Amino acid sequence: MEPVFVHFDEVRPFELAEGVIGRPLFGEGAMLNVIEFEPGATVPLHSHPHEQLGLVLRGMQALVVDDVAHELGPMEGYVLPGGVEHSAYCGPDGALVLDVFRPVRDDYRDRWESESA
Amino acid sequence: MEPVFVHFDEVRPFELAEGVIGRPLFGEGAMLNVIEFEPGATVPLHSHPHEQLGLVLRGMQALVVDDVAHELGPMEGYVLPGGVEHSAYCGPDGALVLDVFRPVRDDYRDRWESESA
Repeated sequence: MEPVFVHFDEVRPFELAEGVIGRPLFGEGAMLNVIEFEPGATVPLHSHPHEQLGLVLRGMQALVVDDVAHELGPMEGYVLPGGVEHSAYCGPDGALVLDVFRPVRDDYRDRWESESA
Repeated sequence: MEPVFVHFDEVRPFELAEGVIGRPLFGEGAMLNVIEFEPGATVPLHSHPHEQLGLVLRGMQALVVDDVAHELGPMEGYVLPGGVEHSAYCGPDGALVLDVFRPVRDDYRDRWESESA
């Protein structure tokens, strides 16, 4: 692939969960996903084989693993190895988070591309 | 590996180039690196087999590829496929950038771990 440069404001969003949207940028073996939580939005417990890393950009995102809530503010980061069950919730002002997945989430790519139709 | 949660302010920095420091977070097959450019700092032309993705958090980072400067501000992102030669410079106020590498940069891990001695 060729180098890609984007402004995330110009990336079409797709819905990850109710009140949670993502704006993806796909590489070859990894991807970025800028996700925005509306106040009160949550992501239900789930897992995926993909490794997930991330950084909180604004607000608070809590990642719940093994019933322990890790409440993360700006400039706090994380690594969730593949297969680790997790859920998420945000603070009263919502949250803006950069997620990284390795490898690329083909399920996200399929959904994102299909929503462009 | 186990899940990891960190505040990047508490991650020991290492020097990437004169006036450019990084704070890494290592996953299994990918890594984050929060890099901070002092005003006027530059990264000389180089390449690596690792795919690189990233997001500008503050200030301006220009990525120069094939003699074309891509000046990126906050919430602008990029994908540089492995092997693409690139250099970088920043704006007058420096820059804060999140870089992602896939796979992990073992050269960074070796340097970062050796500097803890």
